Amino acid sequence: MSEWFETQAGMLDEVWRQLTRGVADAKAPARHPVLATVSSDGLPEARTVVLRAAERSAARIEIHTDLNSAKIGALRHQPMAALHVWAPRARLQIRAGVSVTIRSGDAVADMWARLPDGARGNYGVTPAPGTPIADETGFSREADPAAFAVLDGALQWIEALHLGRTLHRRVLFQAEAGWTGQWLAP
Amino acid sequence: MSEWFETQAGMLDEVWRQLTRGVADAKAPARHPVLATVSSDGLPEARTVVLRAAERSAARIEIHTDLNSAKIGALRHQPMAALHVWAPRARLQIRAGVSVTIRSGDAVADMWARLPDGARGNYGVTPAPGTPIADETGFSREADPAAFAVLDGALQWIEALHLGRTLHRRVLFQAEAGWTGQWLAP
Repeated sequence: MSEWFETQAGMLDEVWRQLTRGVADAKAPARHPVLATVSSDGLPEARTVVLRAAERSAARIEIHTDLNSAKIGALRHQPMAALHVWAPRARLQIRAGVSVTIRSGDAVADMWARLPDGARGNYGVTPAPGTPIADETGFSREADPAAFAVLDGALQWIEALHLGRTLHRRVLFQAEAGWTGQWLAP
Repeated sequence: MSEWFETQAGMLDEVWRQLTRGVADAKAPARHPVLATVSSDGLPEARTVVLRAAERSAARIEIHTDLNSAKIGALRHQPMAALHVWAPRARLQIRAGVSVTIRSGDAVADMWARLPDGARGNYGVTPAPGTPIADETGFSREADPAAFAVLDGALQWIEALHLGRTLHRRVLFQAEAGWTGQWLAP
């Protein structure tokens, strides 16, 4: 039986297995991807996010954030983001280009209603995240549905890099090619 | 005795402790940061890199790469990169803005001479990294000093975010402010 990394289909399966597990398992590597964006100044930004959904059939991922955070400003300027996951046991780097739609307010009222109380407290910081404050306690939190934003990410491409013992395999899957793969020099 | 995350100085010390340990210890979180760049198309890119040096006194980090890799093209377009590390035990996210100078050829001949043979094989892939190839073995490696590039990164700012049990502390340190800190709303 061949290993998953020996075929393009196996690599794409493993990518989605990792992403799906990230949603379900708080300790899985894909639970906390890095999301890279471009600021309105044209500068790169990267931060850890929490992966809230990953649907292979829709080629979609979901991230929740504060509507007043810097990444919202960056995504309004440049809606393409880059997602990055390193899965150490699989020795697999997942990179993806994601076209992000920002949803908030009425459009996510149903989702807000389903959030546990503990989770709601993540949305609604005064002053807004990233604002200078006089000391480390100089802010307050109050659950605010108006601060709840859903980043709806449509995957445009996925690049998988497996670091094998004898061979590094790198393959690019593109939405516009129906997710067929293309080997790349690693 | 206070915990390191209770003061700005303690947080900056911990950042540098993590970075320094990343250089020395292949299993430390900062050994493999994510480096985010902006492509010549203005799109965000992110990939795992290996941290080769971190010098607090010079506020400098160093990464080695193939001169023909995509990140070189991105950095020629936009020399500012973003470095990201998540240190799980410390519950510390390190983000830094880095102004990158690309050094290669004669400027790094001494460094090439000191690289172990095994490391040299990482520089020199035909075709260049990221080029489409017919199958996963359709490339060759030969150590090539002309493909060896050193990314010399001058840190412009560092943002530390500690996820404490009762309080999340976020502080921005800027080179132009002599690395004094500024608390930010988390």
